[in-house]
Amino acid sequence: MSTVKVGIIGAGRIAYVHAHNIVRNIPFAEVKGIADPYLTDEGRKWIAELGIENVYDSHTKLLEDKEISAIIICSATPTHTQMIRESVLAGKDVFCEKPMDLDSDVIRETNKIIEKSGRKVQVGFNRRFDHNYAALQQAVATKKIGDLHICKVNSRDPAPPPAHYVKESGGLFKDMTIHDFDMVRFLTGSEVDEVFAYGAVLVDKAIGEAGDIDTAIVAMKMKSGAIAYIDNSREAVYGYDQRAEVFGSKGSMETGNDVSNTAVFSGKDGVVAEKPLWFFLERYTAAFTSEMIAFLEAIRDDKEVPVGPIDGLNSILIAEAALRSLKSGKSEKVIY
Amino acid sequence: MSTVKVGIIGAGRIAYVHAHNIVRNIPFAEVKGIADPYLTDEGRKWIAELGIENVYDSHTKLLEDKEISAIIICSATPTHTQMIRESVLAGKDVFCEKPMDLDSDVIRETNKIIEKSGRKVQVGFNRRFDHNYAALQQAVATKKIGDLHICKVNSRDPAPPPAHYVKESGGLFKDMTIHDFDMVRFLTGSEVDEVFAYGAVLVDKAIGEAGDIDTAIVAMKMKSGAIAYIDNSREAVYGYDQRAEVFGSKGSMETGNDVSNTAVFSGKDGVVAEKPLWFFLERYTAAFTSEMIAFLEAIRDDKEVPVGPIDGLNSILIAEAALRSLKSGKSEKVIY
Amino acid sequence: MSTVKVGIIGAGRIAYVHAHNIVRNIPFAEVKGIADPYLTDEGRKWIAELGIENVYDSHTKLLEDKEISAIIICSATPTHTQMIRESVLAGKDVFCEKPMDLDSDVIRETNKIIEKSGRKVQVGFNRRFDHNYAALQQAVATKKIGDLHICKVNSRDPAPPPAHYVKESGGLFKDMTIHDFDMVRFLTGSEVDEVFAYGAVLVDKAIGEAGDIDTAIVAMKMKSGAIAYIDNSREAVYGYDQRAEVFGSKGSMETGNDVSNTAVFSGKDGVVAEKPLWFFLERYTAAFTSEMIAFLEAIRDDKEVPVGPIDGLNSILIAEAALRSLKSGKSEKVIY
Amino acid sequence: MSTVKVGIIGAGRIAYVHAHNIVRNIPFAEVKGIADPYLTDEGRKWIAELGIENVYDSHTKLLEDKEISAIIICSATPTHTQMIRESVLAGKDVFCEKPMDLDSDVIRETNKIIEKSGRKVQVGFNRRFDHNYAALQQAVATKKIGDLHICKVNSRDPAPPPAHYVKESGGLFKDMTIHDFDMVRFLTGSEVDEVFAYGAVLVDKAIGEAGDIDTAIVAMKMKSGAIAYIDNSREAVYGYDQRAEVFGSKGSMETGNDVSNTAVFSGKDGVVAEKPLWFFLERYTAAFTSEMIAFLEAIRDDKEVPVGPIDGLNSILIAEAALRSLKSGKSEKVIY
Repeated sequence: MSTVKVGIIGAGRIAYVHAHNIVRNIPFAEVKGIADPYLTDEGRKWIAELGIENVYDSHTKLLEDKEISAIIICSATPTHTQMIRESVLAGKDVFCEKPMDLDSDVIRETNKIIEKSGRKVQVGFNRRFDHNYAALQQAVATKKIGDLHICKVNSRDPAPPPAHYVKESGGLFKDMTIHDFDMVRFLTGSEVDEVFAYGAVLVDKAIGEAGDIDTAIVAMKMKSGAIAYIDNSREAVYGYDQRAEVFGSKGSMETGNDVSNTAVFSGKDGVVAEKPLWFFLERYTAAFTSEMIAFLEAIRDDKEVPVGPIDGLNSILIAEAALRSLKSGKSEKVIY
Repeated sequence: MSTVKVGIIGAGRIAYVHAHNIVRNIPFAEVKGIADPYLTDEGRKWIAELGIENVYDSHTKLLEDKEISAIIICSATPTHTQMIRESVLAGKDVFCEKPMDLDSDVIRETNKIIEKSGRKVQVGFNRRFDHNYAALQQAVATKKIGDLHICKVNSRDPAPPPAHYVKESGGLFKDMTIHDFDMVRFLTGSEVDEVFAYGAVLVDKAIGEAGDIDTAIVAMKMKSGAIAYIDNSREAVYGYDQRAEVFGSKGSMETGNDVSNTAVFSGKDGVVAEKPLWFFLERYTAAFTSEMIAFLEAIRDDKEVPVGPIDGLNSILIAEAALRSLKSGKSEKVIY
Repeated sequence: MSTVKVGIIGAGRIAYVHAHNIVRNIPFAEVKGIADPYLTDEGRKWIAELGIENVYDSHTKLLEDKEISAIIICSATPTHTQMIRESVLAGKDVFCEKPMDLDSDVIRETNKIIEKSGRKVQVGFNRRFDHNYAALQQAVATKKIGDLHICKVNSRDPAPPPAHYVKESGGLFKDMTIHDFDMVRFLTGSEVDEVFAYGAVLVDKAIGEAGDIDTAIVAMKMKSGAIAYIDNSREAVYGYDQRAEVFGSKGSMETGNDVSNTAVFSGKDGVVAEKPLWFFLERYTAAFTSEMIAFLEAIRDDKEVPVGPIDGLNSILIAEAALRSLKSGKSEKVIY
Repeated sequence: MSTVKVGIIGAGRIAYVHAHNIVRNIPFAEVKGIADPYLTDEGRKWIAELGIENVYDSHTKLLEDKEISAIIICSATPTHTQMIRESVLAGKDVFCEKPMDLDSDVIRETNKIIEKSGRKVQVGFNRRFDHNYAALQQAVATKKIGDLHICKVNSRDPAPPPAHYVKESGGLFKDMTIHDFDMVRFLTGSEVDEVFAYGAVLVDKAIGEAGDIDTAIVAMKMKSGAIAYIDNSREAVYGYDQRAEVFGSKGSMETGNDVSNTAVFSGKDGVVAEKPLWFFLERYTAAFTSEMIAFLEAIRDDKEVPVGPIDGLNSILIAEAALRSLKSGKSEKVIY
């Protein structure tokens, strides 16, 4: 069993997650090097702790390293497609964080290059690897719930981002709901045909002033005929609310939130259980590991990656249709 | 404490519910008579069992009875407004089953007459009297959840009605969702501004052939700024699925279904709890009693009825906007 | 269908429960009279509200009334067996509140007289008629859980009684645990062979000074071979904690507490559900009605009563064995 | 930060768990060698996979290695105390699997030697490091539940061991309940004063023929005055049932089982959730890691180990008292 050698572009929080998982939990892979032109002290610290030896200013060093077969892109979103292009042209397989880009045209162009290159590119939709969503997806795929009629995704963050982030990030639909658009595609096993969205600014006025919304309901007609909807908020004070339901002709399957322990306290003020795990790093710890294992196994065993460029593209296409709907007040077709 | 004497128009299933509740559970009221031109054997039987002495062919006998101060209208929907008009003009207070009518113009006209008459008219939105929804409504009204951002109503029937019923009934939105439209108004304490609806025929083709839908998601912008949505199906094989959630700046409150007992069986195939109570007669037993007590107390104590003609009207106005949206593919204003 | 006419001895709280249930919920029965030598104003009030016409100083008036076929004994425990004797000798069927007496010898003598009389005597073990326990009992009787191995009864009161009550009442085992002893017999479908008990005074020192305990665990070997145990406290600050579990070769069935609504609030301090219903009047409302229906139906249809004198006796015999165990520190046989 | 070098005695299943955790999850420690005179092919395989280089026939090689500061004893129970003695006399700190020995006298002697040696010895009561039990223990220690009155431990295995194992293992109390005895001590923060036990053979006759029991309830009086009890079965067909409750003057805290996902399926046959995780390797995965981290940190930072020789001794003393009670039918004092 040969070792898959990996280079990581970017040394921020999510880079740490992937590096840590590979070093600690994935015996058949190795982080050979990491590149970040703006390396922070914090980054330097965890790179040392994980024993990663080669630290570079520029990602080209990673691309030139012939031993490295896989590149993990954790740099800022605007650099994603450029990094993907260079990586696949250098013959590397690629794992890229979501979203691939905020503009679907850019993704389309990139995907053509990826296809020509024949390299594997996985997009970072980590939730597909979560135990709860996996159970729902199985219930649909195996027809345990019969034919799917309704798919619901509840997705609320524990606290809003700073308003300045909102602009760079592409706004609610491209930054946050993008995960839920992908989840709807994953759970239903179908593409979205039409989208309708209501949005509101109820959490933080500054978000509205930055031209974005913080609360939304997005309804979708799937090509399969099923109906789906997503319920979003930038602030659930009780923590990261991540639930979903698939409802069909033979029943319904629904997931709750994960908690840190099952203890329930019965006292004078009620029967109190733990809140949901606080945010994505806690909630999707295992999913981040699983997605990386899936990527690295696909390389090791020359299998298809489970989430590819088409998933990166289609989720953005849905977001674009949702944005059009927000303006037009109409149900909008997703333009594939 | 004087007794409130009541006449009931119609002797079908819901008439039985109200008659039974008054006879058995409401000591300060009495069913003096019942009128039904097409009395069945079954009707005759329960009328006898409940000891109701006066049974008439025509409701005019009830209207002429000076001892009767309240009329309960349980006849077919197309007769509702006619019965209301005659009753209030005869000086009676009225409880009328929902919907008041399938046409908002007819209700508007009726409501003018009601207003002139000065009589009390309560509309049969029984779910407002349910313990679970009451807890949610309180959580909004007392700001326990802070400012309301999102209101969700899950409402799924256990089994579809026959397709022929679908036509007479006014279709999904006016027959079934009407309860949910009222619930959204009740929970949010706000009127609906705009409505958008997706519908589908996924349960029974015959329903589609009859020109109706059996599955829907309806999204609403409330005048308060909050967003609401309703998720409907004509067939949840596991029973009557009646849940709601109110989500706001200080947290979320959510209700589950009621069950016949709390027993949970852990065996080889999983950990199995009871299904939801089967349908509305089981689920809203106590609510039907409470709404009737509220109505009769309003008469006895000369108080306002808790659900009035405006609620009967506005719920139909929302249904009409939802139907327009279904055709236009657009968000539609409710026309008040 | 003839009406069963009933006389009630005693006009305290539990008398009200039974009278109310008969008047309001049991159409085939009627409370013809009530007797209490120490009638309070409160008693007088509810007797009037329920429209009970005949109120006597002495129960003999009820016994002399030939129309009355059933006597419901709600007087103080020390009078129970005397009332039963007089009633059955007067040819009446009897419902008697638990316990029949604090002394098993007295019950044994009474039961002989009952048997000779041929009258029906039901003992007020209301919990047997509760929906949750009924589900457990069915799971054992139908072998859904396979062969029963372990039976657990959790029974905790919301607040301790005054210490002076403790003495009259016969103490924890004869006053409170008596229900649980009967429940163990009901759930297991077996008699208790041996008993062991640990007791402690942890809630209220005054209870200890009155010679009683307020916290206990009682373990039992059943004649069937199964093991059972009861966990008691006089004070669960969160309310009446009434749960049970039956565990066997094919799985386990367990019940939770009943609540006033299913609403769950997720906020900064946790995910908070309702507390258990406060005490027995709230928790066993439906069970009190069901036990009375069962009794009155047994009379109307000349069937066996579902809980008889032997149940009244055997529960006290277990309590006596538990008391012996408390003193001896040994497992004690129940002396049948 | 220096690396703690470890030698492992024994190469069975639990040795694998500890070795894996150290190699994969504990960066500051290293498995330098492993010793097993009867190494199996399976053992050989995982030792290679984990990259452990030094494999010996005899543990003396580990004791002679000056770089090794800690010994983890995973050999058969009868060898435990011998291994502990040799290890501490060789100047090593020790982690020893439970039970230390089946005979309390042997443990007492060993503990004297440990004390003289000044070495750290941790005993493998892994459940103390579980998230659920930790929440309960905190609720007692912080008085969140007020003063503790009742402590309940539910502990049922998914499937019985082969009867021949039963003999070697010391029987139910010394093999399985030993964990629960320790848990009662951990949760209550008190020592056991008296013990009473009922046992039965209900799962497998062969266990009875081997002189053991497979079902038990053990009640305890704690020195603190609280009452505790344990409910054991060798076979819960639905999986490893590991729950506990602490009940006190301010309320109760209770834990449920852990599950593989939160999905709940509502279908025609009920509302079905996942079964508990199957057995201890799945249920206590994280706890096994945490206990090893605690041990190795105690060495690295020269702190006290969280579970020591006294815990190994006292749990066996309780088991011995429980066995005496089983024979005598009496409450038995634990002889410290």
